[in-house]
Amino acid sequence: MNTRIVLARRPTAWVDETCFAFEHVADPEIGPEDVLLQAVYLSLDPYLRGRMNEGPSYAPGFVLGQPIVSRVVARVIASRNARFAVGDHVWGFLDWAERVRVPRGEGLHKIDPALGRVSHAVSVLGMPGLTAWVGAIQIGQPKPGDTVYVSSAAGAVGQLAGQFAKRAGAWVVGSVGSDAKRDHLLARGGFDAVFNYKTTPPDEALRTHCPQGIDVYFDNVGGSTLEAALRHANVAARFPVCGMISAYNTDSDAGIRGLQAVLTKRITMTGFIIYDHVHQLPAYLARVAPWVRSGAIWFDEDIVQGITQAPAALVGMFQGDAMGKRLVQVAPE
Amino acid sequence: MNTRIVLARRPTAWVDETCFAFEHVADPEIGPEDVLLQAVYLSLDPYLRGRMNEGPSYAPGFVLGQPIVSRVVARVIASRNARFAVGDHVWGFLDWAERVRVPRGEGLHKIDPALGRVSHAVSVLGMPGLTAWVGAIQIGQPKPGDTVYVSSAAGAVGQLAGQFAKRAGAWVVGSVGSDAKRDHLLARGGFDAVFNYKTTPPDEALRTHCPQGIDVYFDNVGGSTLEAALRHANVAARFPVCGMISAYNTDSDAGIRGLQAVLTKRITMTGFIIYDHVHQLPAYLARVAPWVRSGAIWFDEDIVQGITQAPAALVGMFQGDAMGKRLVQVAPE
Repeated sequence: MNTRIVLARRPTAWVDETCFAFEHVADPEIGPEDVLLQAVYLSLDPYLRGRMNEGPSYAPGFVLGQPIVSRVVARVIASRNARFAVGDHVWGFLDWAERVRVPRGEGLHKIDPALGRVSHAVSVLGMPGLTAWVGAIQIGQPKPGDTVYVSSAAGAVGQLAGQFAKRAGAWVVGSVGSDAKRDHLLARGGFDAVFNYKTTPPDEALRTHCPQGIDVYFDNVGGSTLEAALRHANVAARFPVCGMISAYNTDSDAGIRGLQAVLTKRITMTGFIIYDHVHQLPAYLARVAPWVRSGAIWFDEDIVQGITQAPAALVGMFQGDAMGKRLVQVAPE
Repeated sequence: MNTRIVLARRPTAWVDETCFAFEHVADPEIGPEDVLLQAVYLSLDPYLRGRMNEGPSYAPGFVLGQPIVSRVVARVIASRNARFAVGDHVWGFLDWAERVRVPRGEGLHKIDPALGRVSHAVSVLGMPGLTAWVGAIQIGQPKPGDTVYVSSAAGAVGQLAGQFAKRAGAWVVGSVGSDAKRDHLLARGGFDAVFNYKTTPPDEALRTHCPQGIDVYFDNVGGSTLEAALRHANVAARFPVCGMISAYNTDSDAGIRGLQAVLTKRITMTGFIIYDHVHQLPAYLARVAPWVRSGAIWFDEDIVQGITQAPAALVGMFQGDAMGKRLVQVAPE
């Protein structure tokens, strides 16, 4: 039997485990040209919250009663397709299930084992990494000596956004939601200062840690953090907007105050979604994979074991309990 | 005697006439290299509201008890400076007074009478015009067939932003604060649709007049108009932010709701201030002055007569009673 996870109900505010249900279905059979996969890692990402709502977010919504879908790293366990051999590792947008049949192998990307760990295909060498690069470097355009502030700095994207900005010569400040994350990030390196936004008022923290003001604010959270960044921004600051997770799990919308700073300080806020930039992945890999191999860039994966833990792992991620990129391991690599 | 207007008190919310006082002082005398000017037109612009506050806006604040300063078109009535002859027209940032001494003529710009009416130096061929060009064309980047929405469309900047976008091949929609402005703008041309935001709910108006969604929103007002534009924006929309007049005259800050659209729709909001772009004025004049001369571009000036009317004219402008660029005429050209 094959275990899969479906959307049982749509959340109205915070996601909880009752939004999900497990189903046990017959193992899939494959026809000509098909590929059979064993899921290895489910990728858990903040954007999944939007897909649980009714109506379109920037990705189509999940269907009630149908499987949750995300990026999944998988191993080929049977193949009638000449492009894929048993033992190959691939990633694709796949149902959350132990085993998945992929008709004609469509939409699967082979993972080059020379690049790094197979999980990296959905983390540092995949979309979270490219997201950090596009936002922190291409949109943020940090110059040596600039101050770059990154929220959700311990997250999959934030940890890399900070390190990329640091390599560009910026003074890099991160905010996180716990002292453990703060201490961990400071020990790991790549950030000049890190503060816990739950225990330090952001105005005080930004005054202390960004004495020259903020030139780039990499926004992962929106809300009052964005408001504080607007207050501390310098003239001509760049605000790549990557996420507004503070608004994802609520049905209220308090509004962002102080947006006049966009005018008075000539700030450019640029929302971006990585789907518009996937063509840049090969160039990104050519640049960043060597840094990962050499250890010039570190990357934390927070791997939860077992498909039965996936709902709790996702709920917890929205509550801030992940240290780095959260993955659910379904089977050995 | 020489009449001048000083800042008598700082407004807390709406400006009223008690913020100003008239003083009668001795006529200025000039020394070597100085120029004596007769004020002709005072330029009234929304940014003056910020300068009436304590603390820095994007221009330094006015000093209590000292004259209001803005762009002024003036005529040289005495000169001991070889660069300026009696009868020349000039503009500069000058005190609001009938006659002004300018030490060594510093900061004065001669007006080329061949370009157009002398008042144009502070309107269509000056900063309001360049502001419209930078926002609507350079930041907005309208393509043929795009929908461009302009708020405060009957204002000095808005009327030109709309016409420039129209010349770029866009479908242009304006909002204004009265039926008279709406009818006037439609009669003048250059806008495909105009609505009165005070009588038509913006969502309804934008649904009707921007059926393809908004690709460029030229923001002069902020507030609920900006919120509506976010709701109706297309993917990859550009939002040049030129003014947030709805926030200028209030000490509350309700916050902008729905800013998540910046992310989900990959919107770029770009605040801009024309001081950063003044080097482009010659290129702008070379392009636009012929359009004004030929009548390809129209421009409304709303000229109030007499320096004693200046406070009421400014108060009224913030309340929306100006039809086009507001000037106060102090003396004949």
